[in-house]
Amino acid sequence: MPDRALHVDQIQTPAPVVDVNRMHANLRRAAEYTAAHGLAWRPHAKTHKSPALAAEQLRAGAVGLTVATPREAEVMSGAVDDLLLAYPPIGRAKLDRLMALPERVRLSVGLDSAEALAGLAEAAHASGRTVGVLVEADAGMGRVGVQSPADALALARMAADAPGLEFRGLMFYPGHVRSHVEEQDSAIRALAARIAEFVDALTAAGLAPRVVSGGSTPTFWRSHEVAGLTEVRPGTQIFNDRTTAEIGACGWDECAYSVLATVVSVAVPGQAVVDAGSKALSREEIRADASGFGALLDRPEIVVKSVSEEHGLLDLSATDWRPRVGDRVRIVPNHVCVSVNLHERIYGVRGDDVVDVWEVEARGR
Amino acid sequence: MPDRALHVDQIQTPAPVVDVNRMHANLRRAAEYTAAHGLAWRPHAKTHKSPALAAEQLRAGAVGLTVATPREAEVMSGAVDDLLLAYPPIGRAKLDRLMALPERVRLSVGLDSAEALAGLAEAAHASGRTVGVLVEADAGMGRVGVQSPADALALARMAADAPGLEFRGLMFYPGHVRSHVEEQDSAIRALAARIAEFVDALTAAGLAPRVVSGGSTPTFWRSHEVAGLTEVRPGTQIFNDRTTAEIGACGWDECAYSVLATVVSVAVPGQAVVDAGSKALSREEIRADASGFGALLDRPEIVVKSVSEEHGLLDLSATDWRPRVGDRVRIVPNHVCVSVNLHERIYGVRGDDVVDVWEVEARGR
Repeated sequence: MPDRALHVDQIQTPAPVVDVNRMHANLRRAAEYTAAHGLAWRPHAKTHKSPALAAEQLRAGAVGLTVATPREAEVMSGAVDDLLLAYPPIGRAKLDRLMALPERVRLSVGLDSAEALAGLAEAAHASGRTVGVLVEADAGMGRVGVQSPADALALARMAADAPGLEFRGLMFYPGHVRSHVEEQDSAIRALAARIAEFVDALTAAGLAPRVVSGGSTPTFWRSHEVAGLTEVRPGTQIFNDRTTAEIGACGWDECAYSVLATVVSVAVPGQAVVDAGSKALSREEIRADASGFGALLDRPEIVVKSVSEEHGLLDLSATDWRPRVGDRVRIVPNHVCVSVNLHERIYGVRGDDVVDVWEVEARGR
Repeated sequence: MPDRALHVDQIQTPAPVVDVNRMHANLRRAAEYTAAHGLAWRPHAKTHKSPALAAEQLRAGAVGLTVATPREAEVMSGAVDDLLLAYPPIGRAKLDRLMALPERVRLSVGLDSAEALAGLAEAAHASGRTVGVLVEADAGMGRVGVQSPADALALARMAADAPGLEFRGLMFYPGHVRSHVEEQDSAIRALAARIAEFVDALTAAGLAPRVVSGGSTPTFWRSHEVAGLTEVRPGTQIFNDRTTAEIGACGWDECAYSVLATVVSVAVPGQAVVDAGSKALSREEIRADASGFGALLDRPEIVVKSVSEEHGLLDLSATDWRPRVGDRVRIVPNHVCVSVNLHERIYGVRGDDVVDVWEVEARGR
C-alpha cells in the first residue's frame, strides 16, 4: 500500500491527505483520556471507513468499533472482533448480512423500537448467534431514542427475554450539545441527569445496564463529567475538522485531515477558485460561530466562502495573499465524515512524503 | 445488467431509484425544445455519471456530452465521441489523462486563464491532437470566467495561434439565475446583453465564436431568449429535483429521481426517521423559497426537516399520516447531482419492477 516514492505534489487533486503524526497524536490523546477516566473507547468507523485505520485505533487502545451500516460492519469485521452497530437494522436483507458476520465478532446493536428488536431477535435466534442489545434513549437531541425510562425498560425486558438476544445496556448520542466546550456546563449536567433517570429505572427493575454508551466529538473531553457513562463513541476525533476546532474541542494544529486542492481560476477579483467543491468537501454549513465550507490549513483566516460541485471559492478579501493558477492548498472541511465519504482513498503524509494510502473501503452500501 | 426478477421492495435502502418513463419523457422534452429553437443539446454528465445514461441522451438527440473531470471524460468516452470538458485541466497528470482519450473523441475544453491555455496547448501539441477551446466568460455568477471582452479576446487569440489548439467559441454558466422561471425576465435580458458584448468584441476582431455554450437547468426553458446562444448544457434536467420543481423549471410529476428509504425510528413524536441522511441525500440547503433537505415523492408536503449522516427526519407536524418502522418512502432531494454522487448505482424502475441498473461509474477521481 505505501508508495514511498510518492511526493505529495504528485497526488492528483482534489484528494484527502492526513498528517499521520497529528492523527497518531489524536489517537494517543483519546486513549490517555479514556484510560484516565475508566471509560471504554469505541470510536465510530463512519468517519474513516477504513479497516486499516480501525486497526490503528485498536492498537492505540480502543475496545472495539462503532459502525452505522451493514457495509461498515462487514468491512470492519476484517479488522475488529467487537462491533456495535449503533443503528437499527430494519428488514430481512440487512439482518441477514449482520448474521453472516464472522462468528468471532461480538456484536451489539443499538435500537429504539419493538419492531427492530423483534426482527433482530428472530434473526439472531435463527442463526444461532447471541446479539447484544443497547436500548437507545433520547438524551435531548430529539432524533431517535425512546422518550421515557418506562419505554426503555419495556425494550430491555424484551431483549432480556428473547432467545438470541442479550440486554447489555443503554446508548445515547448527545448530538444536541454543540456549543463551545467551555459553554457546555449546563448541557452536560442535564445530560447526566437525564441518563441517571434511565439507569435508575433499569437498575430498580433488576436490569442494571452494564454498558452506558454515549459520547461524541464535541462533548468528548467532558465525557467524565457524565456520571454513569461507561463507554464513548467519538468519530471525528481521529482527524478533527473545522467545526471541532471552532467549538474548542481541538486545536487547529490537531486538525489532521485536509483536502488537497489546486487553484484553477483567479479570473474573478478578490477570490481564487480551487478544484475542491461540494463533491470533495461537501456543502455542509458549519455548526459554530463561523461561515463558509472550510478554511485553509496553513492560513485558517482564508475561508471557502462558497462551493459548487467542482468549485470552491476562497475568499481573499481579508488577505494580501494572491495565489496563481496551479498553486496548491489544503482545506480543512467543516465536517470531516462527509468529506471522507466523497473519496475513494486517503493519503497519509509525513511532511511532503506520502507514507500510506488507505482505501475508504466501507463507503457505499 | 437488468435483473427482471427484482421488485423495488427487494432493493436495500437507501438507494436511488429513477422512474424510467419520467426520465425518457424529460429527455424527449429537452430534445424537442432544443430542436425547435435550433440549439445544440450537450447535457452535463456530472448529474448521472453513467455512460449508459449518456448513451440514452445521445439516442434522444444530444450532440455530445459535457463533463467536469478527467474521470468523467474517461468514462464517458466509452459512450460518446464529442466531449466538452467544461473545466480547466490544471497540471501534467490531468492533461496526460485527457490526451490519452481515444483519438476518435472530439475534445473541447472551457478555460479562463493563460496558464490553463498554455498547459493545454503544450499537451495537445506534444500528443498530436487538436483540442478545441471555449473561452469561459463570467456572465454574472462571479465564480469563474474572464471579466471583460478584452480578456476573452486575448485568450481567443492565444488559442487561435497555438498549434494543437483551435478557438471554437465562448462558454458561460448562468448559475446566478435561480429565481422562479416566471421571474427571470430581467436576468435573462441581462444575460443576453452581457453575452452580446463578448460575441461582438470577438466578431469585430475576426474571431467570431462558432459556439456560444450556456444553459443550466434553472434557465433551460428560456434558453431561446438568450440571443446568440448556440448550445445548452443542462445537467439536472434528465432527472429533475426538488429545487427544479420549486423554481418552476419542472413539474413535481417530472421528478424522475428519488432516494428509496426505510423508516427506522418513530420514537420521537411528530417525526419519522428514515435511513437516508446526508450520506444519501446530501445536506445541501434548498436554493428556493422552501426549507428542508428533500420531500416525499408521493407526499410532497412532507419534508425532510433535518439530516445527519445516516438519518433523515421527516416532519409529520402537518399531516395525519403516521408511518411505522419498516415502511418505505421515496425522497426527492434538493439537488440530484450531489445525491447521485453518493451512490454506487441507480435503479431504473417502471412501477414496482426494476428494469435497469446503472453504475455511477464516473464518480470519484
